[in-house]
Amino acid sequence: MGLAWPGVIEHYAEFLPVSDATPRITLLEGNTPLIRSEYLAKRLGDGVELYFKYEGVNPTCSFKDRGMTMALSKAVEEGAQVTICASTGNTSAAAAAYSTRAGIQSVVLLPDGYVALGKLAQALAYGARTIAIDGDFDDCLKLVRQISENYPVALVNSLNPYRLQGQKTAAFEICDWLGRAPDYHALPVGNAGNITSYWMGYSEYHERGITDSRPGMLGFQAAGACPIVTGEVCEKPETVATAIRIGNPARWQEASAALRESEGRIEAVTDEEILTAYRELSEEEGIFCEPASAASYAGLKKLAAEGFFENRECIVTATLTGHGLKDPDMAVEMAEVPEKAPNDLDAVVEMLGLA
Amino acid sequence: MGLAWPGVIEHYAEFLPVSDATPRITLLEGNTPLIRSEYLAKRLGDGVELYFKYEGVNPTCSFKDRGMTMALSKAVEEGAQVTICASTGNTSAAAAAYSTRAGIQSVVLLPDGYVALGKLAQALAYGARTIAIDGDFDDCLKLVRQISENYPVALVNSLNPYRLQGQKTAAFEICDWLGRAPDYHALPVGNAGNITSYWMGYSEYHERGITDSRPGMLGFQAAGACPIVTGEVCEKPETVATAIRIGNPARWQEASAALRESEGRIEAVTDEEILTAYRELSEEEGIFCEPASAASYAGLKKLAAEGFFENRECIVTATLTGHGLKDPDMAVEMAEVPEKAPNDLDAVVEMLGLA
Repeated sequence: MGLAWPGVIEHYAEFLPVSDATPRITLLEGNTPLIRSEYLAKRLGDGVELYFKYEGVNPTCSFKDRGMTMALSKAVEEGAQVTICASTGNTSAAAAAYSTRAGIQSVVLLPDGYVALGKLAQALAYGARTIAIDGDFDDCLKLVRQISENYPVALVNSLNPYRLQGQKTAAFEICDWLGRAPDYHALPVGNAGNITSYWMGYSEYHERGITDSRPGMLGFQAAGACPIVTGEVCEKPETVATAIRIGNPARWQEASAALRESEGRIEAVTDEEILTAYRELSEEEGIFCEPASAASYAGLKKLAAEGFFENRECIVTATLTGHGLKDPDMAVEMAEVPEKAPNDLDAVVEMLGLA
Repeated sequence: MGLAWPGVIEHYAEFLPVSDATPRITLLEGNTPLIRSEYLAKRLGDGVELYFKYEGVNPTCSFKDRGMTMALSKAVEEGAQVTICASTGNTSAAAAAYSTRAGIQSVVLLPDGYVALGKLAQALAYGARTIAIDGDFDDCLKLVRQISENYPVALVNSLNPYRLQGQKTAAFEICDWLGRAPDYHALPVGNAGNITSYWMGYSEYHERGITDSRPGMLGFQAAGACPIVTGEVCEKPETVATAIRIGNPARWQEASAALRESEGRIEAVTDEEILTAYRELSEEEGIFCEPASAASYAGLKKLAAEGFFENRECIVTATLTGHGLKDPDMAVEMAEVPEKAPNDLDAVVEMLGLA
């Protein structure tokens, strides 16, 4: 008995900016598995113990739920009746789900004509009011900012500071699971909120003496959208990993600080490397993630090829940010189509090489 | 510290037909949240406390993972090099994922020309060998049976008895979470494996004195595929809830015994009732499940309308078998398309009623 998980706010309340008066708007996010690599770790190095923090098994199937439970709990505490964001992906899904859970309306702005309806399936299902703006994504961002500054509407975009607070709980969970901090932590970097959050989490556990070290942070951007790697805003970000297709990260400064303080690394990985990693994760390890998630393992492979893990005994954790079902078309596109066979036992046995 | 979850076999090993020699083929399935209903419970009755066992947050996004971790662990223990099943849905996804995790090949047979590729996205992603047979689903079932009987190939269809063993752990988790057994447990019924498993689980906890009661089992079939309700095989099962579109359940007898022993109920719910429940779950409670999952809540509403919960103080648990992302097209189909707006602050403020 005693299995009950109350969600990340209640479980980690002492580490979060909440009080007893803060409502817990939760779908019991977090408590996600840390899956030990049985197959892929070997390719990094003999001394590498690799674990995947599988954030795809959160309620809306991405890590965004950790931040959104905080954002909505604080929004309700502060009296908001509406949330707003500009997003076409995981953020809009989480914003819609947690707003519904809070009993308030969510509004999602998106550029008209740009977004396939399938990408919006979750926001629509969770009852968001979706509005297609005759403009581009930056226009949408500007509108949600103006609206939230002038009306009683809670902005739940990445600028919302409570989201970082919630997301840092993933680092706590990893330390609680391992009984220590990992030596390295790898993750995809887009807007750079997550690398900022993990570093906050690892640092807070360390400051409180719960862990006696902090990991080196290993951030990986897509080669077509890697402003932190090049040190320059990327005007036309392009990558198959849509969740990290960001040209000017909101948390650039904080990410740079995390990389510096942790003596970490930031590297770019090509779309081809990302998609190869994506296939290896599902076809060899049995873990299906969205393409952007695979940047973390793709980056580790790149470092390994450079000799980074040679003669190094270490525990490496890698965040897989979202579930593969977020983008089923990519899986179908990359797979072999079914073979065909007659309705005949001998023929099928022959095909399977069992005869 | 001490958060680590080892998967359902290791956690519940003493209740399962495994020994220390049985490998644990796991993706850390189970340990799924039991989400308290904040909104929908009220519609059932004033005295009803309702919880959703949200199985959509398993590794392949359905409850099938609980059974498949057992099926593959035993298959590997017994020396199998290949698994086979006939399936186009959640079973094939779980079979492929756990076979890959075990390092062995999975084969999935399906009727040619019948199945949309999107439905196979997971099996394909997890590296299953898919073979389209020039025949119908029964032909596929017959073939996989013959192959598994005559060759060293493990059958992981619903006939595999270990799957029921794994699935019963969901009942254990509910009792462990609540610190008692619920008064009623509601779930969708198709092949009737899950109702059989839950009843096994509740009964075993009760026999061992871990709980002091067992719930009444409330099973719900789709009106177009309700053989247990009518007492007759349904020759042409038809329902929008594809995961329970079964005309002749494999576990019919066991389900009947569970219903009798628990003094439970089995009822049919229409597709309209299922889809209404599906929308209410996501739009009002914030929980997105696949259509078949919603049969459990649809059925509870039907019982409530008949006065079942009147003047009754009780704890009700309801299984939501799979995640809504399993069938995103349904969500899109049922939702409103985005509204359109010009790129203008005043216009959007006006639309939102904030002016």
